[in-house]
Amino acid sequence: MTDEKKKVVVAFSGGLDTSYTVARLAREGWRVYAACANTGGFTAGQLERNRANALRLGATEYVTLDVTREYYRKSLRFMIFGNVLRNNCYPISVSSERIFQAIAIARYAREIGAQAIAHGSTGAGNDQIRFDMTFLVMAPGVEIITLTRDEGLTRQQEVDYLNSIGFEADFAKLKYSYNVGLWGTSICGGELNDPAQGLPEQAYLKHPTAVEPTELRLSFTRGELTAVDGQAYTDPIAAIQAVEERGAAYAIGRDCNVGDTIVGIKGRVGFEAAAPVLIISAHRELEKRTLSKWQQYWKDQVGTWYGMFLHESQYLEPVMPDIEAMLESSQRNVTGTVILRLRPLGFDMVGVEADGDLLRSRLGEYGETQTGWTAAEAKGFIKLMSTPLRVYYGAHPDERR
Amino acid sequence: MTDEKKKVVVAFSGGLDTSYTVARLAREGWRVYAACANTGGFTAGQLERNRANALRLGATEYVTLDVTREYYRKSLRFMIFGNVLRNNCYPISVSSERIFQAIAIARYAREIGAQAIAHGSTGAGNDQIRFDMTFLVMAPGVEIITLTRDEGLTRQQEVDYLNSIGFEADFAKLKYSYNVGLWGTSICGGELNDPAQGLPEQAYLKHPTAVEPTELRLSFTRGELTAVDGQAYTDPIAAIQAVEERGAAYAIGRDCNVGDTIVGIKGRVGFEAAAPVLIISAHRELEKRTLSKWQQYWKDQVGTWYGMFLHESQYLEPVMPDIEAMLESSQRNVTGTVILRLRPLGFDMVGVEADGDLLRSRLGEYGETQTGWTAAEAKGFIKLMSTPLRVYYGAHPDERR
Amino acid sequence: MTDEKKKVVVAFSGGLDTSYTVARLAREGWRVYAACANTGGFTAGQLERNRANALRLGATEYVTLDVTREYYRKSLRFMIFGNVLRNNCYPISVSSERIFQAIAIARYAREIGAQAIAHGSTGAGNDQIRFDMTFLVMAPGVEIITLTRDEGLTRQQEVDYLNSIGFEADFAKLKYSYNVGLWGTSICGGELNDPAQGLPEQAYLKHPTAVEPTELRLSFTRGELTAVDGQAYTDPIAAIQAVEERGAAYAIGRDCNVGDTIVGIKGRVGFEAAAPVLIISAHRELEKRTLSKWQQYWKDQVGTWYGMFLHESQYLEPVMPDIEAMLESSQRNVTGTVILRLRPLGFDMVGVEADGDLLRSRLGEYGETQTGWTAAEAKGFIKLMSTPLRVYYGAHPDERR
Amino acid sequence: MTDEKKKVVVAFSGGLDTSYTVARLAREGWRVYAACANTGGFTAGQLERNRANALRLGATEYVTLDVTREYYRKSLRFMIFGNVLRNNCYPISVSSERIFQAIAIARYAREIGAQAIAHGSTGAGNDQIRFDMTFLVMAPGVEIITLTRDEGLTRQQEVDYLNSIGFEADFAKLKYSYNVGLWGTSICGGELNDPAQGLPEQAYLKHPTAVEPTELRLSFTRGELTAVDGQAYTDPIAAIQAVEERGAAYAIGRDCNVGDTIVGIKGRVGFEAAAPVLIISAHRELEKRTLSKWQQYWKDQVGTWYGMFLHESQYLEPVMPDIEAMLESSQRNVTGTVILRLRPLGFDMVGVEADGDLLRSRLGEYGETQTGWTAAEAKGFIKLMSTPLRVYYGAHPDERR
Repeated sequence: MTDEKKKVVVAFSGGLDTSYTVARLAREGWRVYAACANTGGFTAGQLERNRANALRLGATEYVTLDVTREYYRKSLRFMIFGNVLRNNCYPISVSSERIFQAIAIARYAREIGAQAIAHGSTGAGNDQIRFDMTFLVMAPGVEIITLTRDEGLTRQQEVDYLNSIGFEADFAKLKYSYNVGLWGTSICGGELNDPAQGLPEQAYLKHPTAVEPTELRLSFTRGELTAVDGQAYTDPIAAIQAVEERGAAYAIGRDCNVGDTIVGIKGRVGFEAAAPVLIISAHRELEKRTLSKWQQYWKDQVGTWYGMFLHESQYLEPVMPDIEAMLESSQRNVTGTVILRLRPLGFDMVGVEADGDLLRSRLGEYGETQTGWTAAEAKGFIKLMSTPLRVYYGAHPDERR
Repeated sequence: MTDEKKKVVVAFSGGLDTSYTVARLAREGWRVYAACANTGGFTAGQLERNRANALRLGATEYVTLDVTREYYRKSLRFMIFGNVLRNNCYPISVSSERIFQAIAIARYAREIGAQAIAHGSTGAGNDQIRFDMTFLVMAPGVEIITLTRDEGLTRQQEVDYLNSIGFEADFAKLKYSYNVGLWGTSICGGELNDPAQGLPEQAYLKHPTAVEPTELRLSFTRGELTAVDGQAYTDPIAAIQAVEERGAAYAIGRDCNVGDTIVGIKGRVGFEAAAPVLIISAHRELEKRTLSKWQQYWKDQVGTWYGMFLHESQYLEPVMPDIEAMLESSQRNVTGTVILRLRPLGFDMVGVEADGDLLRSRLGEYGETQTGWTAAEAKGFIKLMSTPLRVYYGAHPDERR
Repeated sequence: MTDEKKKVVVAFSGGLDTSYTVARLAREGWRVYAACANTGGFTAGQLERNRANALRLGATEYVTLDVTREYYRKSLRFMIFGNVLRNNCYPISVSSERIFQAIAIARYAREIGAQAIAHGSTGAGNDQIRFDMTFLVMAPGVEIITLTRDEGLTRQQEVDYLNSIGFEADFAKLKYSYNVGLWGTSICGGELNDPAQGLPEQAYLKHPTAVEPTELRLSFTRGELTAVDGQAYTDPIAAIQAVEERGAAYAIGRDCNVGDTIVGIKGRVGFEAAAPVLIISAHRELEKRTLSKWQQYWKDQVGTWYGMFLHESQYLEPVMPDIEAMLESSQRNVTGTVILRLRPLGFDMVGVEADGDLLRSRLGEYGETQTGWTAAEAKGFIKLMSTPLRVYYGAHPDERR
Repeated sequence: MTDEKKKVVVAFSGGLDTSYTVARLAREGWRVYAACANTGGFTAGQLERNRANALRLGATEYVTLDVTREYYRKSLRFMIFGNVLRNNCYPISVSSERIFQAIAIARYAREIGAQAIAHGSTGAGNDQIRFDMTFLVMAPGVEIITLTRDEGLTRQQEVDYLNSIGFEADFAKLKYSYNVGLWGTSICGGELNDPAQGLPEQAYLKHPTAVEPTELRLSFTRGELTAVDGQAYTDPIAAIQAVEERGAAYAIGRDCNVGDTIVGIKGRVGFEAAAPVLIISAHRELEKRTLSKWQQYWKDQVGTWYGMFLHESQYLEPVMPDIEAMLESSQRNVTGTVILRLRPLGFDMVGVEADGDLLRSRLGEYGETQTGWTAAEAKGFIKLMSTPLRVYYGAHPDERR
């Protein structure tokens, strides 16, 4: 006789909610496939523990879906191209990774012919939307199960249930909750619950260990990070991690994001993200040198939306490939090396070495003398440039300010 | 017999170019009115020296036109409302002040019935455009005289001429040239001429003297800075100067702007601008708390253009009052106190105390539990929110990523 | 003894769904206040019939809430200022009116202390959102009742119920359903259900009766329509109706809108809207003459969003007053008379009589000769205008196209 | 002995100014290469006459540079992708073609090693900028000669000169001046010089000959016109000409553009452009069916700029390929047939036949019933959709409108 059990894929992180979900569904007669989608935030040790725990909790199978490079190729590089910093500060770290985790889970569910997908997000936040929407679109017809959201249990109730089936683990509620990803770590809770307070030093995972300023050289090829301090990388993930190591020693990239959640309330999240902040700052500086004014203007326009859509669970919006096409085209000359000087909690932009640096142009000099035009030509330029205003104020002399 | 001499107003800064201009025009038979338009960057001592020198150079009259408060009321407060940082970094310090100096000069020329206005800008940079355009529009029919631009003299030739008429002053060419304004100091020259280098510590006018972090509290009323560290100010200029003093002790607000000049080449300028950076950062944080997502979006859109037009000598563009109207409307709830922690070369955003802080809303909590909606309602929200994508990928299943 | 019945306000249009709602709620023990919010689409006769029918159906009270002028003042004039045509064609006729009907209903409910508000919209379309959202925001805590949506009844079931309580009326399902408003009539159904077909002549309510072209003169004062064919109007509603009468005789303003609904699917609606199309076309022409390029650019930007937000039930978004402030500022010179020539099914733009018409400027002529600048000045202008491109292609000669 | 004469390429249209230029330069000792760059606006007969006249005027060589297909491939198809109608009406007909004529001339000058390029534009208009800028950028170092602009001659003076050298031709000044291109004909002069008047019937080149409405079917494949009335075209130019023939019989596509010239004054130009108006209208309708809301939004944004830059002589701006990449990506599903009904002076949009028409989706129906979601889900959607407004007005109850 064949196994008649229905299959459910549980998006498994190893945390309390998804552990509870695996345990409950296994006991309710589902054949549980625990799948941990990794976009670069898990260590090998964590993944090994996840496997062991998933099986102990009753999963029939456990699988790690490594989509780190897919995440880079399909989105992270465009976030760099677009200098994406939500609300002018936040590299949307983990929230952008969530989408690719959801896509990997949905794909896996289709592959194994699952009847259902389960995730552990609550009904209060953004992550439920990223999971639900991606599943609805990428795996239409597959049931979505969300025990944590539907049952409204407390952490203690979930722990009690796990204990009752003989599963003991450390699910103690910490003062802060952390979400570690390739593109930064987000921090919730603690002082952040008071709108007037910020995070204290001890809330961060990384603390400044370096004191003396040192130089960091980031080299880009058509917008992609290809060398760090002169060492070439063929794997962009390794390059990012090298920058992270350099910056984290100075505790660079700390800040706190206040913004609108997808569910409509304001939210506040701390973060530490050395690599994103350094890489995007360097990339933007290189663009200031190599792109025209209007290229930068339009990149800013669509980059803002790229980040907004990614954050707000709209990665699958059909406009996203259109934006990516524009961003990719814009990078054709973004090649060169950016020099930064790192210091505790911050850095200075030093300069750029790039053949395509338009600052190096010999047409004119930004200063006392130049050779690109004559004084008479400049005066003609200004004369015609003022035409629209001369026409307007000629008609409306009383509007002169 | 009446004085038959034609009148010329010279926009007089006390520097070499405008000193030369006053001397030459006086000797060529003009009745010279030397006018120093001050938007907050000159000290009383400098203005006194300007008066004495102008008269020594041959000016018939000297006048200081103090337009600091006009500058604040007509533009600076909108730059704060709009969080204007050109190229994501530069508070457009002195270049925004130049426009109001030009307007004051043009107004003065009309008042005294001058036949001409003279300024000392060269043909290579942006300032000639700010002066010429403003004069063409605000004082149509008045001749514009620009000896420095037209004659293409070197600094030494100008010094020689001044010496030849018995005017001796210290016009030594410095390694760096500074432009001090209310809204920041710009720095040109030196290492900045090498695209790969940044400014060294000694290039700055202000150096960190404070070491221990301290808290700074900035209070805003409908977007305007009204108190610093709890002390109320009725004069916004005094409030700005108080912030500058606090921030300059930590050497906050240093950076280097690379951007497109109005004449079309790339330019690079260093700056130190403690007050602008602190005030705009605090103001923006307060807006994150008190404005809706789309208010912030639209403010960013028009704020970017407000800064661009101001920088590019388009302050008189008829759209500017329209943008100002939008910015002013947006500030109706931007009231509260922002807390920052200053440290050498930087600062941390701590928090906000504001009645209108939308983070304080009781509708829902950004976390595990909430009371604004049920799990079922959240699921309905996500279901309908996914409709466009479900329709699209239903028609184009092969585009699933 | 006092009346213990709970009060419900029913947003009453006189149609089948809201008639059913009044009847049902009255019989379920509610004290029913039938309120018909009129933004200009109802005739006096219809309102009288509504009163009679509401009372026959069991309403305790009936009231007409005339908010036509409020609608004009708070929104319609901004739609004209912003030249709002959704998807480049649709004056968002009735859907913009729905919001003001909902606001009037919510205000009335607060005034009489109602415990509930009911509307007749189904769960498939946009109107449920306009009603629900407005009620949730404007009358928080008041219950929202929607029998039609919740019970999923067919039209026949509703008719049967009304017959069963002795209420007979002509609720025959027509081939087309019409929604008549001040700012246009929308048409659904019939051939529109086939994506490849358009509406036939008989689907429209108004048919061309005039054959010979005639001139129409529309005069605006600071953007508001103040005279039609030389006759001044103090009541803008009367002016709009005068234009509608002129244009409808030629069946001007027919088209079909295809766009995204708030619930996320594509929708298609026919419309006839002579006054909106003529007024907006004339207003836009006047703006082309009196506004600067960038004023028009920014008006288009925010006008598009104003229309989008109005259509998508976001009239109450806090950014809307900010946009209105910008639009209002932009109209300061939009004063003059626009001349159109009407013909069957269309019209030609003839010209403009306006003191502020910038086309009349004497600076230069758009043609063979001019006086605003010399050939040499023009060449200087072009030389400097080319600087960024000369710099760029100097660095990238291979990119020349 | 070798020919020591310097070579000049004259951008030769056959009109008075360029005829004069050829004659003068030949007589001043230049070796004149008369080059007529054709983007589709010249007939074979005109080109033959141009050749004969150029040689009679003294040109050493005459060449027709046919860049019609280059113009289509490099720009016109993007104008269709972007639905480019400047000021909401003008397909920028001839002015977009001018750029490609200039590029062809510059390329030819480089090929033959010319020392100079000459064009016949005056100093008053836009065309001088399109020629000068393109030459400065595409043929740096080559001298630009513009006799008409520099000498400020009248038409009569030029005619007299030509007569004096024995060249007689009909250069009578017409009431209207026409500029015929592939993408429409522009009309200047006559009644247009009076801001209050429009063009009379006789000003147009094409007059309605058809009376009875007929159907026109335009088929697009990934945004490009590939069939007209069911007949497939491999040559897009031929397809455009077929549409022009159909539409011109009804005199469709007449209008008058009022807008800002590059030199800064307002300008006014009439045009007749049947093919552009019909093709863009049909293309836009197809996009309404096949693109998402945000794809259309972003296409409108960048399309507006694409048209602005093209018109304002910024085709070579580095951002243009970035915009083209976005536009091209957006067309991946813009495939199907659009049905229009042509009538004298106008047309009606009938419908669309397209597999990817998102209106055909089976998820939900825009009407009374639907199957994509339940009433409860819709209510949940609206509840959460209102969250930001509920939060905002909870904090600011007095702002309720």
